[in-house]
Amino acid sequence: MEEIHVGLVGFGTVGAGVAKLLLQNEKLISEKTGARLVLKKIADLDITTDRGVQLADGVLTTDVDQVLCDPQIAIVIELIGGYEPARTFVMRAIEHGKHVVTANKALLALHGDEIYAAAARRGVEVLFEAAVGGGIPVLSAIKGNLAGNNFQTVLGILNGTCNYILTRMTQEGADFGDVLKTAQELGYAEADPTFDIEGIDTAHKISLLVSLCFGTRVDFKSIYTEGISSVSALDINFARDFGYKIKLLAIGKRDNGRIEVRVHPTMIPVGHPIADVDGVFNSIRLTGDFVGAVMFIGRGAGMDPTASAVVGDVIEVSRSILAGAVRRSAPLGYLDDSVATLPIKPIGEIVSKYYLRFSAQDKPGVLAKIAGALGNHNISIESMIQQGRSAGETVPIVIMTHEAKESEIRAALAEIDAFDVINGKSILIRIEDNLE
Amino acid sequence: MEEIHVGLVGFGTVGAGVAKLLLQNEKLISEKTGARLVLKKIADLDITTDRGVQLADGVLTTDVDQVLCDPQIAIVIELIGGYEPARTFVMRAIEHGKHVVTANKALLALHGDEIYAAAARRGVEVLFEAAVGGGIPVLSAIKGNLAGNNFQTVLGILNGTCNYILTRMTQEGADFGDVLKTAQELGYAEADPTFDIEGIDTAHKISLLVSLCFGTRVDFKSIYTEGISSVSALDINFARDFGYKIKLLAIGKRDNGRIEVRVHPTMIPVGHPIADVDGVFNSIRLTGDFVGAVMFIGRGAGMDPTASAVVGDVIEVSRSILAGAVRRSAPLGYLDDSVATLPIKPIGEIVSKYYLRFSAQDKPGVLAKIAGALGNHNISIESMIQQGRSAGETVPIVIMTHEAKESEIRAALAEIDAFDVINGKSILIRIEDNLE
Repeated sequence: MEEIHVGLVGFGTVGAGVAKLLLQNEKLISEKTGARLVLKKIADLDITTDRGVQLADGVLTTDVDQVLCDPQIAIVIELIGGYEPARTFVMRAIEHGKHVVTANKALLALHGDEIYAAAARRGVEVLFEAAVGGGIPVLSAIKGNLAGNNFQTVLGILNGTCNYILTRMTQEGADFGDVLKTAQELGYAEADPTFDIEGIDTAHKISLLVSLCFGTRVDFKSIYTEGISSVSALDINFARDFGYKIKLLAIGKRDNGRIEVRVHPTMIPVGHPIADVDGVFNSIRLTGDFVGAVMFIGRGAGMDPTASAVVGDVIEVSRSILAGAVRRSAPLGYLDDSVATLPIKPIGEIVSKYYLRFSAQDKPGVLAKIAGALGNHNISIESMIQQGRSAGETVPIVIMTHEAKESEIRAALAEIDAFDVINGKSILIRIEDNLE
Repeated sequence: MEEIHVGLVGFGTVGAGVAKLLLQNEKLISEKTGARLVLKKIADLDITTDRGVQLADGVLTTDVDQVLCDPQIAIVIELIGGYEPARTFVMRAIEHGKHVVTANKALLALHGDEIYAAAARRGVEVLFEAAVGGGIPVLSAIKGNLAGNNFQTVLGILNGTCNYILTRMTQEGADFGDVLKTAQELGYAEADPTFDIEGIDTAHKISLLVSLCFGTRVDFKSIYTEGISSVSALDINFARDFGYKIKLLAIGKRDNGRIEVRVHPTMIPVGHPIADVDGVFNSIRLTGDFVGAVMFIGRGAGMDPTASAVVGDVIEVSRSILAGAVRRSAPLGYLDDSVATLPIKPIGEIVSKYYLRFSAQDKPGVLAKIAGALGNHNISIESMIQQGRSAGETVPIVIMTHEAKESEIRAALAEIDAFDVINGKSILIRIEDNLE
């Protein structure tokens, strides 16, 4: 039987999962490819920790060039994450004519162009299904069977840590800080959770989805990104009263030669399938001009699901190698020459419905002042709740608006926050209810 | 720019959708393939009906051999449906060295072996994403990025007509016959709805899913198939009382060298994402040893979604042709030599939880007799409802069982139905609540 040699850089949790899958399902994979996939070399700085995988002598090395430069190795899997040295390693693998499979969304979101260009010059493939949605095969679907569609929107719950935290806050009425602490103890959140909870990981992922769906480069710095650390149990409760759940949603839309790309806590109507995606599960929802709406749900992280996506890419490249196909597909599904550079619409120009919460002193005329400020900025009110009454104290006033322009909302909020009857900064949460 | 010539057999609704997509998104498809896909010939017996698509002169023909035998045509799309003459046409296209894309689940469920063998001999590909789940790219996912997994189960709501009918029955408390009539008026059900409502279409589709997931031929005649025509508003209401919705579910499971493949009305816990898939939407849920549970939701039928899947397959084959790859993948994802022939477990041997409804005379001792018969067959009762009381009249007695063997359930029901205090045949609906 033919053999295809694979090298792995990064032997952490996911790396161990990949090794386990390749060994455990070796026979299955041969039945599907006609070849034996041999994990020839694994490079990591730490090759002494027991990862629970039985490897032949000599497979582990601390010398990354034994993977990147081995002439027998056809496919290099990069699983160290982060920008450097991942970038250097990936570029070196490509220079040596290796196909690259990676789970590194941060790297691709920031240095994708350079990597894709190098891969095109060298005639190798770069695949990264595991970078978005863990085991969910959504990138393959966009590049593959859904390729005939002009996509209009791509939305997603893309970070399991945030979704776990928001789900527990919703189910238990618990506060953000408490749930984060438990999540860290359970291993669902990292010791430094910034990338997850501030939405940066989600922004990396939506930038890749947008690139694939709309065939465009995405200026990562221009993605409006707001995390979940300011979401309160109070707002989650009000959301429920209005029939919504709060999710950290990544949104990509095509809009007349520009794109909308943003990440922020979002209210989604209860009963919509995406609102029911709870816990560590992820979900991606696409709309295309022919397929209509199509949705994917699955485990968005973890050793085994991520290994499934990585090995799936390895199998796909292997099939192409065995069929004699050189660079059957480009990294973004579009030919490199056809990839556009669509500008991102500034956040002030987006149009949305909004949930607004004000901390107002319970005095006559307050509501009239707030409503007046909103009216002056062309914002019309759909519904309103003023909770409780306690003369002289602060009460929450919640307003749901009709569609309005974000710049108007922000200008109105700045005015309202300056009123002496308003205590503290007002809260704004965007609503997405045009989902079919 | 390179050109790839495509021929189409069958210019009905889906055929017109495919032509529309290929013309409307021609530029997009070139940006993704580097080639122009030319719809060179379309064969149909009726070439006079206006399908709303602008075609060049000479594209339409009533002579199918102008598609099947044209040496310029590389890919033949078969969209006439049914067994014959579809089978003859597909075999002839393969003999002439054409790659085949089809949406014909009936054909593949019954004659797949013959077609796959011919394709292997001739070195061409056979793709059929549109045969299952309309626009949902689930077959590509199973064969492609999920290929590293040993699948344990595949479940699905695979027929939009049935799901539409059951959804309206659930939402409106309406009867089957009335909803079917409206569905026919709205075009959601055909004039002769037998294939849909009796579960045959669903059985065709699950047989393909099982073949791809488990790498096995499926003896179509051995699939236990029960449709929705006997589902009553009464049972839907009882299901709701117990926290379930009734869906026509197709189930495939791997079981120790055998497979379970069955189609029947099934109770699914409310709150599980698959229970929320309503109306004409379809859904497929897979569990693999690495990916865990992954779920797909989308439009399961219709001109445009089906066209999306067909053209997606055409794009995939085109990429392989352009990359010089001959037969990059086998039809089932497994190499033909590796496809097994796993036997289907007889329905009597399956183990499930059951909903049972008896029409009993309201007399003392009836419940004891029923419970006794169940106990004699090792069936234990999880809960029970006896609704209403009206001496001498028939009342429904509903029992939810713990897990039991189907043959025991059937034997018990035969005994119970023979009691003189039981009026009419008892109802049995299987429950699937081991879903995560």
